[in-house]
Amino acid sequence: MADKRGTDNVGTDELSQRVKKAKADNENGDGGVGKDPESENILSEFKTTSVLSDSSREKTIFVHGKLGDQEAVVILEKTPIREDALAELLTGAKLKLEMRNDIYSTYRLLPPPQLNEIKTTVVCPATEKHVKKYQRQESSLVEETGEDYKSITLPYIQKQSFSVQWVHNILEKKAEAERIVYEDPDPEVGFVLLPDFKWDQKQVDDLYLIAIVHQRDIRSLRDLTSEHLALLQNIFQKGKEAVLQRYSLAASKLRVYLHYQPSYYHLHVHFTKLGYEVPGCGVERAHLLADVIQNLRSDPQYYKTRTLYFPLRADDGLLSKFKEAGRL
Amino acid sequence: MADKRGTDNVGTDELSQRVKKAKADNENGDGGVGKDPESENILSEFKTTSVLSDSSREKTIFVHGKLGDQEAVVILEKTPIREDALAELLTGAKLKLEMRNDIYSTYRLLPPPQLNEIKTTVVCPATEKHVKKYQRQESSLVEETGEDYKSITLPYIQKQSFSVQWVHNILEKKAEAERIVYEDPDPEVGFVLLPDFKWDQKQVDDLYLIAIVHQRDIRSLRDLTSEHLALLQNIFQKGKEAVLQRYSLAASKLRVYLHYQPSYYHLHVHFTKLGYEVPGCGVERAHLLADVIQNLRSDPQYYKTRTLYFPLRADDGLLSKFKEAGRL
Repeated sequence: MADKRGTDNVGTDELSQRVKKAKADNENGDGGVGKDPESENILSEFKTTSVLSDSSREKTIFVHGKLGDQEAVVILEKTPIREDALAELLTGAKLKLEMRNDIYSTYRLLPPPQLNEIKTTVVCPATEKHVKKYQRQESSLVEETGEDYKSITLPYIQKQSFSVQWVHNILEKKAEAERIVYEDPDPEVGFVLLPDFKWDQKQVDDLYLIAIVHQRDIRSLRDLTSEHLALLQNIFQKGKEAVLQRYSLAASKLRVYLHYQPSYYHLHVHFTKLGYEVPGCGVERAHLLADVIQNLRSDPQYYKTRTLYFPLRADDGLLSKFKEAGRL
Repeated sequence: MADKRGTDNVGTDELSQRVKKAKADNENGDGGVGKDPESENILSEFKTTSVLSDSSREKTIFVHGKLGDQEAVVILEKTPIREDALAELLTGAKLKLEMRNDIYSTYRLLPPPQLNEIKTTVVCPATEKHVKKYQRQESSLVEETGEDYKSITLPYIQKQSFSVQWVHNILEKKAEAERIVYEDPDPEVGFVLLPDFKWDQKQVDDLYLIAIVHQRDIRSLRDLTSEHLALLQNIFQKGKEAVLQRYSLAASKLRVYLHYQPSYYHLHVHFTKLGYEVPGCGVERAHLLADVIQNLRSDPQYYKTRTLYFPLRADDGLLSKFKEAGRL
């Protein structure tokens, strides 16, 4: 979602034609919608096929439908509330009381329309690729016991034999060598620290680094025992030092964690800026490295025996395996 | 920020008086704003002192100012775009073309006001604590051992003697009784389940409910022992059932968790929709209820002895206490 556009075949620009026609109609005096030649509403004839995704938090919605006989994707996003329009917004609004308790009260506020626009993006004609790109997949929370891991998850991972060639390329300096921020080359406790692709490195506000371990046989949290404490502590300590040195960001401003399930089964640790609410830092998927170390100290087999919870997308093959096993 | 409310001293409910007065004025026919007795706009006389924080991503703004001679905090948040209102939204809107490139075009859309409300929360009279609470602040991650809790955190909480009068109002049905979604009245294992202020209850995508326990002496996670397992399991089980019954949302679509530190020191549990990336669901503050139960089963004193990590804002008095103790 970082880029609303993607790769696609260029079709005829039917939408331009519509807009041009709307303008011409208005100039000919038969538009009839308003004085503004651009107020012709081509979306009034939009027929919704389905909502591809939406975000209550971000006030966005991605809709697939038809504009005339063309496939289209319409993206609506409410606009930020502007400080400079605040006084006008409050003065010109209608207010409806909803609830009152002690010093708190809530209202529904109906602002003047011109201060409350919705940013609208239309992709038309849209290909199937666009539709898929904007489609959200629902996730379900899965409960994985230590036994489930052995009987369901591990066989699935092994069968998939996901390639981590790109990880090996990094460790061997065959790729991205110039991006490395820090390296401890030790084969047992060593790791490579480099920026995640999501971070443009332009400001520390959204700092995101990944530490990839040199050991190649640790798939995930589930493989960790107290034998790996030296490795984990080394990453924690040296990773934080490297971030302080390179980005002048103190350890107390960092969120250092592992994912379970991870995106790829070669052990890696995420370093992100505290306060940067990056996807994947939620309690349902992230495990603080400090907690992992603490848990392994108190129980060397903690992650072998523990029930772990994580979300899986509806189209994830592993979810089907849990369903087949009657675990969902 | 996971809960817009927090701990504060109860003042006179001046806002109620205002609202009552507004109603009376309207009933006397001198309101003059509209036919709806609740459309009197008490915010038209709001004088902004400063913007405490805002989010372009979330379309929110937190404003400090004055309502008459009272300090007030006004929180505005645009509402999610509702699928069921989409057709009406698109048909009834005015559209202004901004940009066109190939198959992409962008517009500013002016929807009918009644489909484009702004959720408004007023805190009045607001104390300095409220103002601070809503002010954007950098956070630091704090490491709290069991000893730190006893020697630093607990004395601090006790000294502050935060008021949870509004919580008691809810438990005693003196306020928000009509908002209760489910209640188990048992004094030991019972709780009240009701929507969080942040949720407008119009769609389940951003479902957010709070379960508040009837027991009044459990401050937080730190007070929990295996003695509370029956209570926690009861909340988990009956809370999930109530959500399924009322909102047709399966348990596997829920993220059920506690905060540490919480916003207020009366035990409560958050129920949010999985996939809804609400502030406060991050691994640095949230603790899955399922994990809490699992931990207390394996070690009855787990949360008494465990080192816990959490972020504290720069202006948090507790952070100063940790600094004074040389723990940061």
